[in-house]
Amino acid sequence: MRETAIIGIGQTPVSENWDQSIREIAGEAIQIALDDADLHSSDGLFVGNMLSGLLGRQENLGTLLADWIGLHNKEALKVEAACGSGAAALRMAVMAVSSGELESALAVGVEKMTEMKGSETTAALGTAADADYEIIHGLSFVGINALVMQRYMLEYGWNHIDFAPFSINAHANAIHNPNARLRETITERDYQRARMIADPINLLDASPIGDGAAAVVIIPAESLKTHILDGKHKNRPLITIAASASATDTIAVHSRPDPLWLSAAEKSARQAYKQAGVGPKDIDLFELHDAFSIMSALSLEACGFAERGQGPRLGLEGKIGLQGQIPIATLGGLKARGHPVGATGIYQIVEVVQQLRGEAGLSQVDGARIGMAQNIGGSGATILTHILKARSH
Amino acid sequence: MRETAIIGIGQTPVSENWDQSIREIAGEAIQIALDDADLHSSDGLFVGNMLSGLLGRQENLGTLLADWIGLHNKEALKVEAACGSGAAALRMAVMAVSSGELESALAVGVEKMTEMKGSETTAALGTAADADYEIIHGLSFVGINALVMQRYMLEYGWNHIDFAPFSINAHANAIHNPNARLRETITERDYQRARMIADPINLLDASPIGDGAAAVVIIPAESLKTHILDGKHKNRPLITIAASASATDTIAVHSRPDPLWLSAAEKSARQAYKQAGVGPKDIDLFELHDAFSIMSALSLEACGFAERGQGPRLGLEGKIGLQGQIPIATLGGLKARGHPVGATGIYQIVEVVQQLRGEAGLSQVDGARIGMAQNIGGSGATILTHILKARSH
Repeated sequence: MRETAIIGIGQTPVSENWDQSIREIAGEAIQIALDDADLHSSDGLFVGNMLSGLLGRQENLGTLLADWIGLHNKEALKVEAACGSGAAALRMAVMAVSSGELESALAVGVEKMTEMKGSETTAALGTAADADYEIIHGLSFVGINALVMQRYMLEYGWNHIDFAPFSINAHANAIHNPNARLRETITERDYQRARMIADPINLLDASPIGDGAAAVVIIPAESLKTHILDGKHKNRPLITIAASASATDTIAVHSRPDPLWLSAAEKSARQAYKQAGVGPKDIDLFELHDAFSIMSALSLEACGFAERGQGPRLGLEGKIGLQGQIPIATLGGLKARGHPVGATGIYQIVEVVQQLRGEAGLSQVDGARIGMAQNIGGSGATILTHILKARSH
Repeated sequence: MRETAIIGIGQTPVSENWDQSIREIAGEAIQIALDDADLHSSDGLFVGNMLSGLLGRQENLGTLLADWIGLHNKEALKVEAACGSGAAALRMAVMAVSSGELESALAVGVEKMTEMKGSETTAALGTAADADYEIIHGLSFVGINALVMQRYMLEYGWNHIDFAPFSINAHANAIHNPNARLRETITERDYQRARMIADPINLLDASPIGDGAAAVVIIPAESLKTHILDGKHKNRPLITIAASASATDTIAVHSRPDPLWLSAAEKSARQAYKQAGVGPKDIDLFELHDAFSIMSALSLEACGFAERGQGPRLGLEGKIGLQGQIPIATLGGLKARGHPVGATGIYQIVEVVQQLRGEAGLSQVDGARIGMAQNIGGSGATILTHILKARSH
């Protein structure tokens, strides 16, 4: 198995984009990634998307996009793992290149979800959970997460306000990200007074949906040095994919022995640490899946950054900021960059690359060399962890 | 890159199955495949499915099924490439094992599509085509194929009746397949008098939809001999995946320079022949994607079994039967085994394995050693070709 590397990144602003079709949005991110890689084409296209069938009446999205961007006769398909679709597509692209099947691959995550009525989008998002045993009871996806948060607060004695730092941090970091959907700081007072959605989750605990696409170009690490030295970006650090791991839990939260422990996050993070030869202490920044503030706490715990039940402490002690012990949501995270569900996993990877290249502007984590991204499908059901490393020439 | 092999197969009868949920149908096929492989579990699950979101309001199907069959904490995801989803999932499973990421993988194709109203299912199938440039004109998926067939008959001078052998052969072969949906022979007279669907495609040119699942277990070929010799199936031939190739065409038929040529079939078949070190003459049987009779003709031509425009000749000259030059649809094909869309690609693979093991009963192709399967998503848009070989111990 050969090591892989990321040679190009692209993204569109997460927004309410009614002017472009899904193919146009994805095509834009792909074109930016190819230009960034100084390449004209790729051997294959792996599309992460959850909702194009339900919200856009369009399946076969892999081939639709390959056609649109001119990848004539090349391989293409769509990968779906609910909100984890983006990282799942990346992982398939990584396997395609690491196996030797392809010499380069594009992974793109794309979602277009703001044109439908809110109720339709909410119902579509519910398809990430178990239709027969969860949704049938009238639960929405945010409702499931609210039950988890309720239980967590009861079990470990936290108050709602203790989760505020997660949202405040994400919004503060998004200010400098031109691709973020919500570029406005929020205060603890804003957080406390936000409109309730599903008790205890209020509007500022939840990430906004959005339209958007992000893309990366993968090549074998062995061709990386030649490619970069030949290309227009001679001064860039080399970015390798040091780990790619995926694990699942029960799809329904109620089936878990401990509904407050993300066993799939623990499993995939452990595998990733092992593959990369690092531990939590070595991670310079962590793009976690903060779809809801409770998920930030649970992810930090399962990945070894906090003791069980103590995730909120990291926020309260100021350890999650750009200069903190473990910077998270450095360009806004799901909370403020926005969460175009099937695209999110690739946005996270693009942002980690920005950090490792030193291209994160005012959101830069100084001296970042090792970054981790974790993308979750369903309520902790499908969890993928990737670790990227920057290497000098 | 290491070679891979198929160690277990499973399938459920294609039927109108309102008694089982999608997870039960898939679970049954997987359990049969694991039993057949003499294994209890697998390192990952790759699910081929097109319509669970649209028809079953259930996404995140990879994790749903991993949970259901007890693959605790293992990797899982869904792959979608319209009616080519099954083979696309197989290819991802092959890459996962050939790259060394996993030591074994399950590929399952599943679809549940008979419970909805026919109009809803027809509309859902249309999402395989281009929503913005084909479906918007009121075309259905069968309508697109009818236009292609119309044009083909005009261009090459064939009459409708010339396509009859494809359907008659498929039905004749399905008689001996207990998993086939339509186990009844048809005559030329039946074919001529069948109800028109979209001129010139009548009911006996078209494959029936259905509910069903098929599954295979993939391991590295290097562990094959040990595994089989240790296991309960000592006398089986070893089945290796000698080729796995995927290619795309434009998604809309009207964008192609020649709408009567399946360039993605040609491309993926050529790649597959090269990988396997064989040519069309070496193929003992060919499970092609006969969703419509016109597709049999086009597939045979693009894969090198007939001259351009001469596909129907193979049927008329009796060369596609079990003892013919190139046996096709040996256990009924899409036409008579049935076409549960996202599952079809895996049914084809299971059937090729049955043939290579000599387990195809009265549908057996004598001395079959090399079998090819080709699965198509959209109207020639996404085409995957696999070649399997039987090897003695």
